[in-house]
Amino acid sequence: MQTTPVQSPTMQQRPLLISSLIDFAAKNHADTEIVSRSVEGPIHRYTYAGASVRAKRAANALTSLGIAPGARVGTLAWNTFRHFELYYSVSGMGAILHTINPRLFPEQIVWIANHAEDEVLCFDINLAPLVDKVASQLTSVKHFVAMTDRAHMPTMSTPNVLCYEDLLATASPHFDWPQFDPYTPSSLCYTSGTTGNPKGVLYTHFSTLAHTTGAATPDALNIGALSVVMPVVPMFHVNAWGTPYVAASTGAKLVLPGPKLDGASLHELMDAEGVTVSLGVPTIWMMLLAHMQSSGATFKTLKETVIGGSACPPAMIDTFASKYGVDVIHAWGMTELSPLGTACRLKPKHLSLSAAEKVAVRAKQGKPIFGVEMKIVGDDGAALPHDGKAFGDLLVRGPWIVERYFKEEKSALVDGWFPTGDVATIDPDGYLQITDRSKDVIKSGGEWISSIELENIAIAHPAVAEAAVIGVAHPKWDERPLLILVLKAGTAVTREEMLAFYDGKIAKWMIPDDVTFVSELPHTATGKLLKTKLRTDFKGYALPTA
Amino acid sequence: MQTTPVQSPTMQQRPLLISSLIDFAAKNHADTEIVSRSVEGPIHRYTYAGASVRAKRAANALTSLGIAPGARVGTLAWNTFRHFELYYSVSGMGAILHTINPRLFPEQIVWIANHAEDEVLCFDINLAPLVDKVASQLTSVKHFVAMTDRAHMPTMSTPNVLCYEDLLATASPHFDWPQFDPYTPSSLCYTSGTTGNPKGVLYTHFSTLAHTTGAATPDALNIGALSVVMPVVPMFHVNAWGTPYVAASTGAKLVLPGPKLDGASLHELMDAEGVTVSLGVPTIWMMLLAHMQSSGATFKTLKETVIGGSACPPAMIDTFASKYGVDVIHAWGMTELSPLGTACRLKPKHLSLSAAEKVAVRAKQGKPIFGVEMKIVGDDGAALPHDGKAFGDLLVRGPWIVERYFKEEKSALVDGWFPTGDVATIDPDGYLQITDRSKDVIKSGGEWISSIELENIAIAHPAVAEAAVIGVAHPKWDERPLLILVLKAGTAVTREEMLAFYDGKIAKWMIPDDVTFVSELPHTATGKLLKTKLRTDFKGYALPTA
Repeated sequence: MQTTPVQSPTMQQRPLLISSLIDFAAKNHADTEIVSRSVEGPIHRYTYAGASVRAKRAANALTSLGIAPGARVGTLAWNTFRHFELYYSVSGMGAILHTINPRLFPEQIVWIANHAEDEVLCFDINLAPLVDKVASQLTSVKHFVAMTDRAHMPTMSTPNVLCYEDLLATASPHFDWPQFDPYTPSSLCYTSGTTGNPKGVLYTHFSTLAHTTGAATPDALNIGALSVVMPVVPMFHVNAWGTPYVAASTGAKLVLPGPKLDGASLHELMDAEGVTVSLGVPTIWMMLLAHMQSSGATFKTLKETVIGGSACPPAMIDTFASKYGVDVIHAWGMTELSPLGTACRLKPKHLSLSAAEKVAVRAKQGKPIFGVEMKIVGDDGAALPHDGKAFGDLLVRGPWIVERYFKEEKSALVDGWFPTGDVATIDPDGYLQITDRSKDVIKSGGEWISSIELENIAIAHPAVAEAAVIGVAHPKWDERPLLILVLKAGTAVTREEMLAFYDGKIAKWMIPDDVTFVSELPHTATGKLLKTKLRTDFKGYALPTA
Repeated sequence: MQTTPVQSPTMQQRPLLISSLIDFAAKNHADTEIVSRSVEGPIHRYTYAGASVRAKRAANALTSLGIAPGARVGTLAWNTFRHFELYYSVSGMGAILHTINPRLFPEQIVWIANHAEDEVLCFDINLAPLVDKVASQLTSVKHFVAMTDRAHMPTMSTPNVLCYEDLLATASPHFDWPQFDPYTPSSLCYTSGTTGNPKGVLYTHFSTLAHTTGAATPDALNIGALSVVMPVVPMFHVNAWGTPYVAASTGAKLVLPGPKLDGASLHELMDAEGVTVSLGVPTIWMMLLAHMQSSGATFKTLKETVIGGSACPPAMIDTFASKYGVDVIHAWGMTELSPLGTACRLKPKHLSLSAAEKVAVRAKQGKPIFGVEMKIVGDDGAALPHDGKAFGDLLVRGPWIVERYFKEEKSALVDGWFPTGDVATIDPDGYLQITDRSKDVIKSGGEWISSIELENIAIAHPAVAEAAVIGVAHPKWDERPLLILVLKAGTAVTREEMLAFYDGKIAKWMIPDDVTFVSELPHTATGKLLKTKLRTDFKGYALPTA
């Protein structure tokens, strides 16, 4: 535990804070650009020096709105320069930035903003209708701020909406970032779990700075002053995986795509601004690749794309590499990990592998970043070997990993380790491979079966549009897998054909006991398969007896 | 200041310690090699997994010798695997590793070891004669340990010398690294100043870990799992610039050259082991380049060489780039900075420059690593602009920079900043250029003249073997520069020719007032010009009146 040192300190102990990042960038990378596709439409560009001054104006403006250290400032906003400024102004002044996912259901947004006790809510103008819908139910918000200039102020039913640019114009550009304990909270993100209420992860300056430097290293995001970074992953999604901090810590040029995330818009911005690395979830890259294929375009400068959020299909890794010469860096993280845990970069031993073998390595979630410790355990809590075969519940610990959720008294840890809820293997080289979610794994006669592995096989069948596998109760084996399928329009496949499709692809005892067909599968607001609902719907399902 | 947080921590606070580094490498990079040219002669190779076990054996062995947390363990040793093990065993167990420069005068070694109160002294066998010379004067050392096996034990006059391999063989391989406050001291290096007694810098686990991650980033040393790192800079010289820690934090292969630092030996090891980056002082690279030229060899895998310790001549940067395709990364640091402050890597704006213009950028000491803040001040202590022209005293602050020297009560800081004793410019891009040492700068009529700049011009004259410039008292201008020259054998140059050589190369008022010729110049034990002696020798020197 961090305690006050006994002897007089021999090394300096002035803490690094989030304000140190923007100060560093403004001083040493003054003319490096931050380029945004604005919500209003046009491309906006300024520099770290300019961003630093505007962050100070914003800090003064927020102070004048009554924001004190520790207060929460909510945002409903896309990736633009104004959101970037709020990252630094809010945390820099000692308040807490609470980024809210505008894609959540309105009632979730209300619950989260009220739980966080947000005092100011800053929002992008195309989200004004959403704000109008929820504003009256937000019990703690005193001021609504539209992140635009006077000319673009939206017409709203919410009264007294303030104009961000008006606030900045009248605020002083002078603000001395306060110095405080590095364990002071800096920002807040809620997880959108599939069960129960969302939980807040309250990051501190210390955890954020530790994550920032770890994330910059060559085996993680590998970001330096020569990088041009475009986070497509939203700034409301675990701080765009830390990139607004990492870019400032190294003076990398930052390209913010705003709300337009279609393939053509992203590609245009990448080529125009010389993006070298971009980050996002597989869905985004699917759309981008579809655009690349239909337009016949290539990437002028893109070298790497970091993919996380959910597992990246090996075919996507292969397409990026073989067609476009872009390396996919598969990564794994969670809101509770700030979010980066692992990144998949090759070791020297992999360099001589064939293209297909490299894809197989890159399909794993990769090695831990120094600072993150991982272990996998079985049902009895005993550690399992890192042999790439044994799979168990994944637990992690480290300085940028949650200890307890916001407003919870109880630690989230088990014997000092955070249980991720993922099931994984770890190989002797330290590479993590997520095989399932703990609650989705099927426990058959003391052995574990990965639902994801069974789904991935099913999805490869030409007739299958979407697949889900859940465990259903079995008198002898406790649980056995049930395959639930949505077929593509105009196709057909029988139960027997589908089960035969598994032959030779997986051990016989792992093959599902039955197949059932549905017209659609339930999903969460963020597009994840809602297996809890499936388990309720199929509770007591009668499996065929062998 | 670091204080105990008020609220229950929401993020984990288990500190990272030096033992976390070797644990990380042993777990995730188990089969990555550490290759050493041993002091006994043969190449030795093992892995991080092997190193981890031996570090635990060494920790048990040191415990059995009475080493307790906080005790100092001295080393007189080259860059080999055994020294690497001591880095981790000593700091890992909570004791303090004190690396001593064997090239110091024996009386300095005695003074330093006694001041540090070293309880155990581990030494390489080719330094046994040195140990025999000093052993009887070491008042705190209870055990001398020869870092070798029984077969190679040296014959010594020092009684009861222990054998390192015997100690390890009988020690248990099980040792649970203790958890403790991260501000616990971990290691100790003394600066070899040109005046007064040496001063110890007592690093902590926190400062070392902060330095380690910062040093790994792309704009600093850029070390990852694909790197093969050879520190030629000694492990007794500010921890080989942190590389034994950085390599473990990323799983980079480590190549340790032992005591043989001639060009042929270094080059052979580089090519045989696939070294991608090597680090050292200019003198070492001069010898290596001489070997490369005479042998006509090339580098098979070397991509970068990090040069620090003293300024790298632009010609060397050019030779590495144009003849061998190797980028020189010029760096600046000090014992008081753990040691890295800056590294010179290009920004995107530099990529389109000509080769000569790139060399000019690379000749600067480079941009600060995030975590290091720099400022330059004039005589009045007021900050000077970062315009690349103004030069002043360089001050720095950050988490891996000294606060106070070992056993000193007084802080070494001035208003929270460490005065480096260097004089420098900082340009608008954040690039530092050291122009002189503060005490060597010549203050002429309120303006500063860089002695190094005048020496660099003189050294370019074909007749000059070595040059020193000092300030001597002047009735009107306070100080004026005096040029002191050693000529190459068989050459000649007059005072007037030498002064004319400055014409057009520097402002007229900066040209030395006089030239004097000597047969040799005084140096410190580490090869630095001893200007204090020159100032004494030439005190009251009568400058010609204009």
